[in-house]
Amino acid sequence: MPKERQISIAVIGGSDPSSRETRIALEVGRELAERGAILVCGGLGGVMAAACQGVRSADGITVGILPGTNLSDANPHVQIPIVTGVGHARNMAVVKSARAVIAIGGSYGTLSEIAHALHSDIPVVGLDIWSLARGGYTDRAIVTAPDEAEAVRLAFALATGRGSNPWTGT
Amino acid sequence: MPKERQISIAVIGGSDPSSRETRIALEVGRELAERGAILVCGGLGGVMAAACQGVRSADGITVGILPGTNLSDANPHVQIPIVTGVGHARNMAVVKSARAVIAIGGSYGTLSEIAHALHSDIPVVGLDIWSLARGGYTDRAIVTAPDEAEAVRLAFALATGRGSNPWTGT
Amino acid sequence: MPKERQISIAVIGGSDPSSRETRIALEVGRELAERGAILVCGGLGGVMAAACQGVRSADGITVGILPGTNLSDANPHVQIPIVTGVGHARNMAVVKSARAVIAIGGSYGTLSEIAHALHSDIPVVGLDIWSLARGGYTDRAIVTAPDEAEAVRLAFALATGRGSNPWTGT
Amino acid sequence: MPKERQISIAVIGGSDPSSRETRIALEVGRELAERGAILVCGGLGGVMAAACQGVRSADGITVGILPGTNLSDANPHVQIPIVTGVGHARNMAVVKSARAVIAIGGSYGTLSEIAHALHSDIPVVGLDIWSLARGGYTDRAIVTAPDEAEAVRLAFALATGRGSNPWTGT
Repeated sequence: MPKERQISIAVIGGSDPSSRETRIALEVGRELAERGAILVCGGLGGVMAAACQGVRSADGITVGILPGTNLSDANPHVQIPIVTGVGHARNMAVVKSARAVIAIGGSYGTLSEIAHALHSDIPVVGLDIWSLARGGYTDRAIVTAPDEAEAVRLAFALATGRGSNPWTGT
Repeated sequence: MPKERQISIAVIGGSDPSSRETRIALEVGRELAERGAILVCGGLGGVMAAACQGVRSADGITVGILPGTNLSDANPHVQIPIVTGVGHARNMAVVKSARAVIAIGGSYGTLSEIAHALHSDIPVVGLDIWSLARGGYTDRAIVTAPDEAEAVRLAFALATGRGSNPWTGT
Repeated sequence: MPKERQISIAVIGGSDPSSRETRIALEVGRELAERGAILVCGGLGGVMAAACQGVRSADGITVGILPGTNLSDANPHVQIPIVTGVGHARNMAVVKSARAVIAIGGSYGTLSEIAHALHSDIPVVGLDIWSLARGGYTDRAIVTAPDEAEAVRLAFALATGRGSNPWTGT
Repeated sequence: MPKERQISIAVIGGSDPSSRETRIALEVGRELAERGAILVCGGLGGVMAAACQGVRSADGITVGILPGTNLSDANPHVQIPIVTGVGHARNMAVVKSARAVIAIGGSYGTLSEIAHALHSDIPVVGLDIWSLARGGYTDRAIVTAPDEAEAVRLAFALATGRGSNPWTGT
């Protein structure tokens, strides 16, 4: 029998990040690999490529779930490209394939991934990210982290059920 | 040659709405039909069924884009059921098939639809809906409407390029 | 309560048909509309456009389930375009949205639609179409029809459970 | 820079195989791993599980692209489960993520995968598989192999552009 699967953590964010977001994604990737996670991401550039590069710098495994129909769309740091051919419907696959999601910046595409994750009860940790409110109340489902190390620590804790959302206690 | 296509407007919202949201969806549906729009929705219950019922009360056309694999999943007010078999990836199809979207309440599934719409530059008019912020600033992309009549009026204006987002001027 | 839904029948086939296949698709479309079916198809050109044109010539309703992300990809005879954004995964939606499928010529894209239909126990009637064999035996699941009129008659009979596959008796 | 990606080969086939098909899948998996391929499959039972088990017996890497929404749907020999949530639309992703496909037995689900592969010009090698004909002529696109070793050899040759379809010369 194969030994237990490694935990998969998704990193999501835009393809045109700020230099600060790129730096964060690199560091998040490196720390994920050091803790033994498999990185799942959308496989393209920007935050996705930076996170993959960070993971590879620490000899981790990178999976890129691509929207298009070509293996060659993957950024060079993706080891295992998945070619879905379903366009942005792949956003759903990125988050559902992970036990926790770390969101870094990002725009409406990232927001759709966050929404799909929360809809599926997959924990989301955010760095420099959207905040949501309904009926005048802030939605506390996205756990905000002060820095990369804490984001990775929270993601692992939530992914393995050993942590709780510090805002909601769930 | 067939005459010009009728405009399609999507109504999105949860499957377990409040009675207020149900009332709003019924009225939005009725007004959409009176203006000659085709209703596109997710085809299931709650806000979707109420909007379809409103449209049918005014002899309009209802399209339900279903997540599952059975025609019989459609609510009884759907005339044209589309069976996608792609689960929540159908959320993307609901909004992309419309020229404007009216969002009524709703939870994370609805949020994913709003995100897909905004990502595709499809205008979203909201009634009792999520608000979004980034970096401390409210995102004005969702146009909030004070009531059903104004929501339908705004959706038509934005769908046909004859209106602008009152918040952003775009 | 809305009256009973009209039966949806899918017509599938290639985007680059022979003139014979185009003529067949036009005639199949016309006969489907005369019998009161809603046409479901892939919404693009070739067999899809010819079938839509045939339906419209007899004042029927045409639904086009598009692979891409633009309403404007639909052929001009589509009244109700569905924009899925999921590429060829929409092939599955085309057949699952119908109670029976008529296949006219076509290549591997059409074959994938036939396979998805048979996998879902949706009857397939073929005109000038693929034949399948396994282990040296012909697969009789595709019902072949000698002409357009018979194809439409068989599709209706199978769609409504009033007919059986003449080859297999099921 | 990461070193060159390993070649991904898909193995497709039914979830209820004969004991002969199971034995073939195990052996194909083992030989793929010995040649250094990553196995891509649908992640469930039957041929998929047997191929994964064969790969793992030779310390190879297994990727399972699942139709549903749960990581736990994967067979125990899948190391990297991808949760697509798009149902049978994942069939397309299985073949598009590979440079060549080996088909073992299988029914209409497998046929849809073969069709999607051929539509995308991805070579298909078959063992005990469907045969296709059009207009009275056999379609030679599926390369049939006499045994497991030859199937794997052919798949590698076609995947790397160093082989040609022995039937068609392309």
